[in-house]
Parts: sequence; C-alpha cells; structure tokens
Amino acid sequence: MMIYLDNAATSFPKPETVIAGMQDCMYRYCANPGRGGHSMSLESGRAVFEAREALSCLFNISDPTRLCFTKNATEALNIAIKGVLNEGDHVITTSMEHNSVLRPLKTVQRDMGIELSFMSSNEYGETFPDTLLKNIKPNTRLIISTISSNVNGIVMPVREFGKIAREKGILFLVDAAQGAGTLEIDVEEMYMDMMAFPGHKGLLGPQGTGGLYVREGISIRPIMQGGTGSSSEYVYQPNMMPDLLESGTLNTPGIIGLKHGIGFICSFGIQNIKVYKHLLVKKMHEELEECSGLKIYSRSDIDKNTGIFAFNIEGIDSSEVSYILDKEYGVASRAGLHCAPMAHETLGTVKSGLVRLSTGCFNTVDDIEKAIYAVKEILNNRR
Amino acid sequence: MMIYLDNAATSFPKPETVIAGMQDCMYRYCANPGRGGHSMSLESGRAVFEAREALSCLFNISDPTRLCFTKNATEALNIAIKGVLNEGDHVITTSMEHNSVLRPLKTVQRDMGIELSFMSSNEYGETFPDTLLKNIKPNTRLIISTISSNVNGIVMPVREFGKIAREKGILFLVDAAQGAGTLEIDVEEMYMDMMAFPGHKGLLGPQGTGGLYVREGISIRPIMQGGTGSSSEYVYQPNMMPDLLESGTLNTPGIIGLKHGIGFICSFGIQNIKVYKHLLVKKMHEELEECSGLKIYSRSDIDKNTGIFAFNIEGIDSSEVSYILDKEYGVASRAGLHCAPMAHETLGTVKSGLVRLSTGCFNTVDDIEKAIYAVKEILNNRR
Repeated sequence: MMIYLDNAATSFPKPETVIAGMQDCMYRYCANPGRGGHSMSLESGRAVFEAREALSCLFNISDPTRLCFTKNATEALNIAIKGVLNEGDHVITTSMEHNSVLRPLKTVQRDMGIELSFMSSNEYGETFPDTLLKNIKPNTRLIISTISSNVNGIVMPVREFGKIAREKGILFLVDAAQGAGTLEIDVEEMYMDMMAFPGHKGLLGPQGTGGLYVREGISIRPIMQGGTGSSSEYVYQPNMMPDLLESGTLNTPGIIGLKHGIGFICSFGIQNIKVYKHLLVKKMHEELEECSGLKIYSRSDIDKNTGIFAFNIEGIDSSEVSYILDKEYGVASRAGLHCAPMAHETLGTVKSGLVRLSTGCFNTVDDIEKAIYAVKEILNNRR
Repeated sequence: MMIYLDNAATSFPKPETVIAGMQDCMYRYCANPGRGGHSMSLESGRAVFEAREALSCLFNISDPTRLCFTKNATEALNIAIKGVLNEGDHVITTSMEHNSVLRPLKTVQRDMGIELSFMSSNEYGETFPDTLLKNIKPNTRLIISTISSNVNGIVMPVREFGKIAREKGILFLVDAAQGAGTLEIDVEEMYMDMMAFPGHKGLLGPQGTGGLYVREGISIRPIMQGGTGSSSEYVYQPNMMPDLLESGTLNTPGIIGLKHGIGFICSFGIQNIKVYKHLLVKKMHEELEECSGLKIYSRSDIDKNTGIFAFNIEGIDSSEVSYILDKEYGVASRAGLHCAPMAHETLGTVKSGLVRLSTGCFNTVDDIEKAIYAVKEILNNRR
C-alpha cells in the first residue's frame, strides 16, 4: 500500500460512506434531479439539496440556494472572475495564486482590458493586510485571495482582507481549494462575497465536484447557458440562483459522495482535522529542519500551514527526489511547479520546483515516520 | 421496482461494470491524473486516456487528444459555440434544439451581435438539407444541429448537413445528446467539425461526464482557464488539445465509469441497441396509435426515432398524465417542455407540453406492455 502524501492534489482514501453513498445512488435512484416529477427524479433532487444544505452548514451560508455546484474549483473561479468584471476594472490578488486564478486573470487582462496588481509578500508567501490597502485604487472592483497556498500551505489573512474589501465596497473572492475541510470557513464572519471550493480535496468527496458561493445581492453573469429544468420556455438563462450558474445535468452521484464527505468531516470535527494534520506536519518540520542540505519552504506553526511540508534537497532535482520517494519508498509526493508559477517565483523555486508532501486526515504517524526516514536516506545517499 | 422510461434525461440502470469500475477506482488508485508522477497518478492518467481511446474508437476519431472531457453536454456546447464565433457571424440551426444550444445562441445573439437563423421543418420537426442550403449567407460561420430531438426522438440528416457545410467551408457542430450510444456516429463520414455528447445518457456512464470532439485544424478559444498539469510556468492557457479545453481536476471516477459504459455498448453492439430500442418504441406506437383521444408526436420508423414515444391524452394535462403514471403505475416519464421550448413550438405543444416515454437498452418488453396498459387505462378513465 502506497503512503499517499499528495492530498493537496486530491485526497485519498475517501471515507467508506462516500463510496457507499455514491454506489447506493447509482444502483437505486440516480435519475436526473430537477427534471421531471417522478419519484426517482425527486429523490435525486432531494439528495442534491441535502448536499447543498450540508455545505451551507459547514461554511455558515444562510441560504443554500446561493451555493451552486461546479465540476471543480477552477470552474467556480472562472465563473466568479468573469461574472463580475467589466472593462477598466482593477483586480488585486496575491503572489501565491494557483493557475486557476492566474490564468483567467491574465486572460481577462489581455482580452478585456482588466488592470491587475499583485501584492508583495515575504519569503514564505505571507501577505499582510496593509499591503492590500496600499494597492487599492478608485477602480478596484475585485480582490482575490487563496485561503492557503497549494504549494507550501501558507495561510492568508482572508478575514482581514475581507474586512478591508467590505469597508471599501470592493468585491472579495476567496479560493478555498487548499483550505476547505481543514480551516474553519465562515463566509459571514470572513466577509466573503464569493468563495470557490473543490469537493475532492479536504472535503473528501469525489473528483468532478466543487462549488461557488455567491453572497445575496451580488449580480453575476454565467459563463454557460443551458437547460436548468426551470423557466424552460424562456430562451435566456433564468436569473435565479442556483439555476443561473448550474446549466445541464449535475454530477448527482458525485454530489452525493461529497455530502457524505461533509458528514465525515462534521462528525470527526474540523478543528480536530486541523490539529491532527498539524501534528503530522510539525513532526516533519521538527525532524528534518536541522538536516544540512535540506531546504524547507513551509512553516510549522498551526496557523500558518494547512498540512504541507515543502522542501528541496540540495544537488538533486525535485522531480528526481519525488521519483525516488515513489519507486524506492512507496511515498506519493508531487514535484515541479504545482500549477502555481508565481508562488514558486515568490519562494525562489521557479527553476528547481520543490517537493511537496501534503497530508490528509487519513495519514498515520507511521506514514510520516516512513516519509521522514525516506527523505533522510535520500539526503544521506547524495553523492 | 420502478418502470424507468426517462432514459432521455439520464439512463438508468447503469451496467454493473460501470459502478464496479468507479468503485475500484475510488478504493484503489483515484489520484489526480496528469498531476505528479507517482504510481497512482499515472494509473489514473492511464485510465482516463483509455476512456479517451474508447470514445475515439466508438466515434471514429483518429486522434484521441482531439476529444476533451466536460462535465456534461451543455459545457461542451457552450465551449463549441463561444469558442469559434466572432461578432457579425451568422449561425444556422434547427427548430428542434435543446436549451443547451438555444440559450447560448440567444445569449451570443444579444451580447456579441451574432445573427441567427432557424431552419423550418415539418410537424415532426424533420428538417431537410435543401432548407439548410436556402439559409446559407456569405457570413454563415457555423451550422448547428441536434442529431436527434430529446422531445420526440426525430433524427436529423446530419451527414447531409455536414456535407453541405464542408463544401461551403462552414463549421458544423452536432449535439449528440440524444443520439450517442444509439446511433452509429462517425465524425469523419458525417463531416462533423465538432461534436458534443453527454456521458450519462445513451453512453451509459455516470452523470458528471460528457465531452467535445474538435477536428484537427479547428482553432477554438476556451471558456475557462486554469491548471492543466502542463506548461505550468506559462500564465496563459496552453494551446494544445485536450489541455486547452480541460482546466482543473477531471472527474476521474466518472470518466472511468464512462469507459465501462462504452465497453458495454461495444460488446452489446450499437446496431443491436438501435434495433432493440426500436422494437420497444414500435410496439408503443402500434398499440396506441389507433386509440382515440391520444395524440402521438413521434414517428415509429427506425430511422426517424432514437427511442422516444411522445404523446398527449386529450383533456388531461401532460403533467397530470405523468403524475398518474408515476403514482398509480410506477412508470417514470417526463412531462412539460423538456428544456426545449422551440421544439414544442414546432410540434404545437408549447402550451400543453407532452408526455415523453424514453426507452433504454435495459427496458424489457414487459416494461413496455405495462406502460401501454397504463396509458390505455388513463385514456379510458378520462371523464
């Protein structure tokens, strides 16, 4: 059995209930939710609504219809970015964003005349609220921040960013890809106007799921139009949420799997997940930080890391380390740029990449000890 | 057990192998395909590529990288429509399109200055190649046709449309939502430039899957940008297929389910599926066409119907008939407008809607006899 430390790409394994829930749906009642009034379609529709409610409960969203399902966080981020910006608008973001934020932004900058500013940060990618204040201009329409970097797990002060945005009347979008399921997210308390999340990472659902929260009163344009099972006689997209942003058949079994993932998180306790992942990550930092020839790019404090140990071994390419970890020790890691070139510029690793070991709530202390042992051996076996 | 005759919304049940394949993936190796080089990620990547190959084989696509996965047919149609049109372009389509074609088209007509023409048709929605010829103008850039209506199953002459389009140098997009898995589709022989399909209808995969074929040499813009696991240092979307149109994490378990759906279809034989579904639909037509008070909107010829019996009972609203079929007889049907208002205008049913009984390859003759019995009883019990 592999020691899976690539949970920032997708979590593995999934809770038994996730797989069983999907299977039950597929075998027993998986009709098209919201299309047709027969019993199976209604049961599918109910199950999808329960998932919406479970997520709303987790994120403190008061109206579940303000949450739409997407295929992944990338779709949610594209909808959010393209749905609110107009020519001449200015956007501020951090230097630690994933390509799911960076590529849409660079595209609207090129094609729509959007202005773009990146906040400066320290060597770990930490960004501070006063930097945000300095970047605000009269035409600033949108502030975007990841809640936590997918490269080194650094946590952003999203509540402080959100407070500033709200005070200035600027929209605030959070990419929760690396934090959802590990950090306690409260869209109200954190002043979020929009929040994008994947279902298959910390939320323990299957791939093919994700979503976008849009605060009531925010007007947003969809990037797709299609059948919604509502206002079928109307040839434009209906304006009501979530239909506005949910065209075509939903991923019903996936969404039901996600509902069970949320159920697992709520019964385990999200605070416990955070503390447990920190225990694992702290152990890696403590046992490896004194090793000469090893450079660490992540922080070990519980409030500054969502569960990632990011490092390089001097003299060996990150992909080679990752390859040896896989082949010799059965440890799944991820090397390279992690789809986040600017984050690597910030960390000074754009040429070398780095090795990412990302923990999940199913990793054991034994997994971590074996991974530490492997890293130490690779380090010692260097020529 | 329900008699499920709503296969045009989504097919049910799925082959055992579809559910088992998804479960095996979720339990054993579901990492993130194309991200990271460890064994599990590679196994996921291989399985996704096998699905791409299976679909390419089914549709005679010579290069599997020209097929991208989407969350549903709606996403595929939005990419195709918005990815090739420019201001001032003219589009021709049929009068039987689903809202997944109609709503994106009406939106680009309103927002982008696209001109739009609808081909006229007969009372069944049949549309003939000479009608297409009459609608072509110098600025015609795109012709879009459903392969078969989701309301009454009528089959469009897509090969003839495609031949005309190719001769005139106009792009040809086919919506195969209702035909894929029942009709033999050959993208080469049918002159298709782009073809959108859902995975969860006739192809017997799970919801949350679909795809778009784009012929080599056709330049298309994506509607989303994001991480692709490729050219990560590049801040714009990579131009190579399928990455260009596949941003963010794919629905790996869903795609693997779809691969098994295709496997089932290939071993059963698509020609056999077509003939078997026709047998069921013909039986409904034959036993009900003489009943007075019952109006039929579908045709019974094998080459003019992909498996739908569409009808109304005089004096009873279509939703009420559908409701009685569900509650009294355990028959799942779909009433109303089926997200296709213009098709209902064509059939003259935009006010009343109609009742759709849509067959799948797992329906039995016994199912059909029970449905016929139920329809006859409802007809006879009218006041």
